[in-house]
Amino acid sequence: MIKTTITLLAITTSYLLLLATPTKNPTYYHSLFLSNSFSDNVSISNNLQTLTRRPHIAGSEANDEAAAYVVSVLTSCNILSHVTSYDVALTYPLSRSLVLTKSSSSSESESPSFSFNLTQQVYEGDPYADVADEVVPTFHAYAKSGTAVGSVVYANYGRAEDYLKLKEIGINVSNTVVLAKYGKIYRGDIVKNAYEEGAIGVVIYSDKKDYGGGGSKWFPDEKWLPPSGVQVGSVYGGTGDPTTPGWASSGECERISKDQVEKSGVVPLIPSLPVSGEDGEKIIRSIGGPVAVDDWQGSKDAPTYRVGPGPGILNLSYTGKEFIATIQNVIGVIEGAEEPDRYVILGNHRDAWTFGAVDPNSGTATLLEVAQRLGKLQKRGWKPRRTIILCNWDAEEYGLIGSTEWVEENREILTSRAVAYLNTDCAVAGPGFHASATPQLDELIKKAIQTVKDPSNSSQSIYDSLTSSGSSPQFGRLGGGGSDYKSFLQHLGIPATDISFGKGYPVYHSLYDDFIWMKKFGDPMFQRHVAAASVWGLIALWLADEEFLPFNYVSYAKELKLNMEELENEISNKDINLSPMYKSIMELEKAATKINNQIKEIEESKNWRTWKMEHLKVREVNDRLMMAERAFTDRDGLSGMEWHKHLIYGPSKHDRYGSQSFPGIGDAVQMAKKLRTVESWSQVQHEVWRVSRVIKQASLVLTGQLT
Amino acid sequence: MIKTTITLLAITTSYLLLLATPTKNPTYYHSLFLSNSFSDNVSISNNLQTLTRRPHIAGSEANDEAAAYVVSVLTSCNILSHVTSYDVALTYPLSRSLVLTKSSSSSESESPSFSFNLTQQVYEGDPYADVADEVVPTFHAYAKSGTAVGSVVYANYGRAEDYLKLKEIGINVSNTVVLAKYGKIYRGDIVKNAYEEGAIGVVIYSDKKDYGGGGSKWFPDEKWLPPSGVQVGSVYGGTGDPTTPGWASSGECERISKDQVEKSGVVPLIPSLPVSGEDGEKIIRSIGGPVAVDDWQGSKDAPTYRVGPGPGILNLSYTGKEFIATIQNVIGVIEGAEEPDRYVILGNHRDAWTFGAVDPNSGTATLLEVAQRLGKLQKRGWKPRRTIILCNWDAEEYGLIGSTEWVEENREILTSRAVAYLNTDCAVAGPGFHASATPQLDELIKKAIQTVKDPSNSSQSIYDSLTSSGSSPQFGRLGGGGSDYKSFLQHLGIPATDISFGKGYPVYHSLYDDFIWMKKFGDPMFQRHVAAASVWGLIALWLADEEFLPFNYVSYAKELKLNMEELENEISNKDINLSPMYKSIMELEKAATKINNQIKEIEESKNWRTWKMEHLKVREVNDRLMMAERAFTDRDGLSGMEWHKHLIYGPSKHDRYGSQSFPGIGDAVQMAKKLRTVESWSQVQHEVWRVSRVIKQASLVLTGQLT
Repeated sequence: MIKTTITLLAITTSYLLLLATPTKNPTYYHSLFLSNSFSDNVSISNNLQTLTRRPHIAGSEANDEAAAYVVSVLTSCNILSHVTSYDVALTYPLSRSLVLTKSSSSSESESPSFSFNLTQQVYEGDPYADVADEVVPTFHAYAKSGTAVGSVVYANYGRAEDYLKLKEIGINVSNTVVLAKYGKIYRGDIVKNAYEEGAIGVVIYSDKKDYGGGGSKWFPDEKWLPPSGVQVGSVYGGTGDPTTPGWASSGECERISKDQVEKSGVVPLIPSLPVSGEDGEKIIRSIGGPVAVDDWQGSKDAPTYRVGPGPGILNLSYTGKEFIATIQNVIGVIEGAEEPDRYVILGNHRDAWTFGAVDPNSGTATLLEVAQRLGKLQKRGWKPRRTIILCNWDAEEYGLIGSTEWVEENREILTSRAVAYLNTDCAVAGPGFHASATPQLDELIKKAIQTVKDPSNSSQSIYDSLTSSGSSPQFGRLGGGGSDYKSFLQHLGIPATDISFGKGYPVYHSLYDDFIWMKKFGDPMFQRHVAAASVWGLIALWLADEEFLPFNYVSYAKELKLNMEELENEISNKDINLSPMYKSIMELEKAATKINNQIKEIEESKNWRTWKMEHLKVREVNDRLMMAERAFTDRDGLSGMEWHKHLIYGPSKHDRYGSQSFPGIGDAVQMAKKLRTVESWSQVQHEVWRVSRVIKQASLVLTGQLT
Repeated sequence: MIKTTITLLAITTSYLLLLATPTKNPTYYHSLFLSNSFSDNVSISNNLQTLTRRPHIAGSEANDEAAAYVVSVLTSCNILSHVTSYDVALTYPLSRSLVLTKSSSSSESESPSFSFNLTQQVYEGDPYADVADEVVPTFHAYAKSGTAVGSVVYANYGRAEDYLKLKEIGINVSNTVVLAKYGKIYRGDIVKNAYEEGAIGVVIYSDKKDYGGGGSKWFPDEKWLPPSGVQVGSVYGGTGDPTTPGWASSGECERISKDQVEKSGVVPLIPSLPVSGEDGEKIIRSIGGPVAVDDWQGSKDAPTYRVGPGPGILNLSYTGKEFIATIQNVIGVIEGAEEPDRYVILGNHRDAWTFGAVDPNSGTATLLEVAQRLGKLQKRGWKPRRTIILCNWDAEEYGLIGSTEWVEENREILTSRAVAYLNTDCAVAGPGFHASATPQLDELIKKAIQTVKDPSNSSQSIYDSLTSSGSSPQFGRLGGGGSDYKSFLQHLGIPATDISFGKGYPVYHSLYDDFIWMKKFGDPMFQRHVAAASVWGLIALWLADEEFLPFNYVSYAKELKLNMEELENEISNKDINLSPMYKSIMELEKAATKINNQIKEIEESKNWRTWKMEHLKVREVNDRLMMAERAFTDRDGLSGMEWHKHLIYGPSKHDRYGSQSFPGIGDAVQMAKKLRTVESWSQVQHEVWRVSRVIKQASLVLTGQLT
C-alpha cells in the first residue's frame, strides 16, 4: 500500500516538474534558430549599411551613434542592454609629413625633393565621397611624435631575420629611416624591431604584390587595394588602455604617466607612418646600394630591390594628439532561466579605422542577426538555461581596449561565472570558414559546421566543404593578440572561440573597407553572414542550453601532446627533461576521459524522484568543466609579460600577435639558443615545469578531488 | 477544479520533498553537538596523552606514529581519512657548540673559557625522562651552518629600533656576535636584523623575567620555564618548503637549489643558536661597555645591562643536516549531502618541537573531540549540507609546510570551492578565549561564544566573561604568519578563523611542553579543550549546514573603515589621496547591506513549489558570499613578497609574523618616511589605489552584477 502511494506521488511529482519546464525541448528551438524563416540576409545587409554609413573610429561621435544603433536593435529584440563607458588614452594624428630627397648629400641645398601627400584617393562615383573627410588621416595609433631625417634602408618585412640578412651583406640600419612592408608580423613589432636595430624612423607600405593584386585593376573594379590605399593601424604592444595597465579605466582611477608608459616598452620610441603602395615604390626607387638578398623579390618594375642606405633621404615628421576619450561598450543580456550566474558571452567590436564594413562590422551585423534570431526565439517561449551576454566592444583597433577594460573591471565575477567567450571580429571577408578555439571546444565547432550549410554550396555542410579534399578541418589556437578573445582567454583563462568566413582581405584597414566592397566582393548575397550567425549562435545556444557543458578535454590533452612533440623535436639534442610534461598531459587525458564517463553515467541514471540531487550534481560537474581552463593560468604569468596569465596560449616576446603554444617555453628556448649557457637552458627546464604544473592543476580540477 | 488539483499536487509534492529531507532540523543536531552527553573531557585527555607520549618533530618516526593515531581515531568516528605526503626540505642539528671566552684579547692564549652544554635538564621524577633523548637538541631550524667568533653585543629584543638605540650610544654590531632575547618579534627576524646590521652570529635566550616568572620556582612546581629551558624554533622567513616556492613538493617536482634559496632571502646567512635563560645571563655577565639604554631593564642580579662589544667573546658553531623528509598531512572528509563541492575546512598541525602538549596537540586533541562528536551526530542521522574536511598538518613548525604544500597542490579546487578555513594551533595554553578572523566571520564567532559556556565559569557564556568589564570582544586579524591559516587566507583569499584558550605560555617550544604541564597548569580538567571543541565545531556546523552562509560583510566594511582611519592619522600631513579607498569601502558596505537584504527577501518568499529555482538562487547568493573574500587578492601580490596575494591581510616586510592591515601600504609608508622622496610617496598612492581596487572587486562580486 505504501509502495503504491509513493509511486503515485512520484508520478504526480514528475508531472508537476514537467509543468514547470518549458513546453518545448531546447533542440526544437535550436532547429528553429537555423531555419530559413529565422535567417534574414536583408536585415544583415541593412544593419551593415547603417553601421558603416560614416567612418567611426574609437572616440568619435559617429562611433557613439553606431553604439546607439546597436542598443536600439538589441532593445527591439527584447534584449536588455546598456552601455558601459571607460575613459581611455587614445591618439589621433595632428600633423604628418613625409619628404623624400633623392640626393644623399645633405650639403646640396637644392636637391630635388618630393613631399608625399599621404592621402587615399576617393574614386569617381564613390557614394561615401561626402563623408571621406571624416576619415582620420593615415597614421599609426600610439606612434611616437617627432621628426626623423635619415638615409632610407629597405628592410623587407622588418622581421628579426630580415635584419640578420641585412647584416650579412654589411648593412647597418643605425640612424637610418627604415622602409618595410606590411604583411608577416604585427606592425608594432616592425617598428619595435627597427628601433632595436638603431633606426630613427619607420615607414611601412602595402606592397602591390601583397595587396594590390599585381595587376592594373583595383577597387571599385576589383577587390584589390588601390595604389593610394594605406593600411592604418596601431603600433601599440600592450593590451588595454596603456595608462591603466592591469586595471579598469573606470570612473576616478589611477593612471600612469606617459613617461611610465614609454618606459614599460609597450609604445614605440621612434616615429612611424604607414604609406600606400605607390608611395612605397617611389621610395624604393630612391634607394641604391647592394641588391636585396635571397627571396626579397622586387616588383615587375624593379625585379630586385636595392637596400641602401640611401641615397634617398627620408624626412618623416609626425605629431599625434594624445587624449582621454570616453569609449562605449554595449552589453546586452538574456538572463538564464535556471543558471543566471553562468555566462555564455558573444563579443565583437564596433570601432573601425574607416568604414569598417569587413573589420569589424561584418561581425557586428552578424551579432545583430544572432540577437534578432534570439529575440524571435524568446517570443516562441524559449529561455536559455544559462545567461547569454552579447557584447559590442569599442576601441579594439587601438589595442583591444574596450574588451580589456571590461574584463579587468569584472575580473572576479567573470573568473567564477564565465562558461565561454565566443568572438567574431571580421565575420566575413570572403569565402571559406575559419575557426580558432581552445581545444575543448573543437568538437562543438565541428558539430556546428556539420549542421550549418556552406553558404557557397548549399548542397553540403560547411564541414563537408572544408573536408572535401579528404583532410580534417584545422582549427587555429588563440595565443595571439588579434582580437578581443585575448583578455578573456589569456588573462582569465576562459574557454574561447573565434570564427570567420575569409581570412585577410586586400583593403584591410584602408579607406576602401566599405559597404560597397562588401556587397561587390565580400558577401554579395550576405549568405556568408547568415552562415556565420548560424554557426556562432548555434555554438552559443548549445553552451547556454545543454544540461552538461559540451566541453571535451580529451581534445585538449591530444592537442597538448602534439604541441609537446613539436617542442621535443625542437630541443631534441638538449638536456631538457620533458617527462613531467608528458606525465601531466597523460593525467589530463585520464581526467578528461573520467569526467566524460561520469557525465554518461549521470545521464543514464537520471531519476526524477531524486531530481534535486541530480541538479546540483550536474552543476558540480559543469563547474569542473568550466574551471579546468582557468587552471591553465598561473598567477605569476608569463615571464616579462606578467599580465598574460595563461601558460598554454599567449604571445611570444618577438611576435606579439602571433599565436604560440607554451609561449613561456618558446621564449626561453629562443633565449637559450641565443645565449647557449647552462643557466639559460635551466630556464627552459623551469618553464617546462611551470607548464606541467598548470596542466596538473587542470587535471585536479577536472577530477574534483582534493589530494 | 483545475485549481484544486494543482493545490493537491502541490501539497503532495511538498510532502514528498519533506520525506527526502533529514528527519531532524540541523539546529537539533547543533544542540546535540554541544550537549554534555556528546562532550568527553576524559577522551580529550587520553588522546592528548597518547599524542604526546613521545617527542614528534616533523620528519620523525614518532610523528608518523602520531599521524597513524589521528587516522585511527578519525576512522573510528566513521570519517573517511587519508594521508597526503610531501617530500620537503627540513633541517636537524648535527653539531652545536658555544664557547664563551671572557678575555677580549685574542692573543691571550690561556684566557678562561666556558663551553655551554646546551642541554635542557630533565627534572627528578619526570615521567618522560626515558624518551628525553628523543628530543632534538636545541637549535634553530634552517639556521646557517658555520662558525662565528666575535665580541658579544647585547641587542635587547633585536628589533630595528633596538639597533637604532645602540647606534645612538655609538655601538656598531659589525663582526660581533649578537645576544638578543626572545619575545617581541619573530626569531627569524631577530637573526635577519642582526645580519643586516653586520653581525656574524646570533644567540637568542629566554629572559627569566619574560619566561621564568622572575622567582625561584618553575616547572614542575610552577608553570614557568626552568633556567635550563630553551625555546627551539624556526628562523625561516618564507612559507612552505623552501625548495618549492609557490608549488607543491609532491611526487617528482622541480626544486630550487640551496644557493637559490639563500639568494631569495628567506633563510639566514649567519649561524644562530637558542640558549636558556641561565646561559643568556652568563653571557650577559661577560659584557662590558656602556650601560644599556632607556627601558632595556636588566634582571635583579644585574639591574642594568651593559651592551658591549665584549670583552666576552663568543665562539658559536653550528652544523645542520639538510635533508628531504616525507611529511604526512592527515585529511578526513565528511561529504556534504547536498553541496559536496563546498568545503568547510578545520585544520590544526601535529608536529611538535618536543612533546607538544600545548603546541600543537591541545589543538589535535580538540580536533579529535570535534571528530568524535561529529561521528556521534552521524550515527543519529545527521549529514552536513556541505562537505566538512578535518586536516591535521605536518611540519608547521618549520614554516607552515604541510598546509602550504597542500594549499599549493589544490590551489584551483580550493579557490573555487572552499567556504572557510578554521584553524586552531595551541587550542589551550591557559584561561581566556582569543579569536582572530576575517571580519565577515566576527558575528558568527560572537554568536558561538554566546552559546558556549565559559569553562572557567559555567554560570555564564564565554562571551559574558569576555565582556564582563563592559567592553566588547576584540578579535585579532590574520595578517601574520603564526599558523596554518596563512596559505588559505593570504595566498588564496579563503575566509578564516583562528581560536584558542590562553595566549602565550612560558614553556613554549621547550622540553617542558608536555602532558604533565598541561594537566598541572594548562587545563587540569580539560574543560577548556571541551569548550574549544564546542566553539570550533559549532562555527563549522553553522558554516556547513546553514542554507545561507553566515557571513556578514558589513562587519568587513566597518573594520576596513577603522583601518583606513588609522592610516589617515598616520599620513595626515602627506599629500596622499585616500578618497578612492573611502569610496570603495562605502561601496562595499552598500553591497554588503544589499546582499543581506536579498537573503532576507529570499527567506521570506520561500515557496516550495518553485523549490528548484530557490535552490540555485541560494547557491548563487552563497557563491557571491564565498567568492567576495577571494576578490581581496590580487594576482600580482604584495610588492617584494609576491606569493602573498591578499592585499588586506598580510605580513609587513620587517615583521613577517606580525599581523597588519593593508601591508602593501604600510610597507610603502615606512619606505617613504625613510626616503622622503616624491617617488616613494607616489608608491604609497599606488598602493592605496591597489587596495581600493580589490575592495571594489569584492563589492562587484557581492552584488553579482557585471558592469
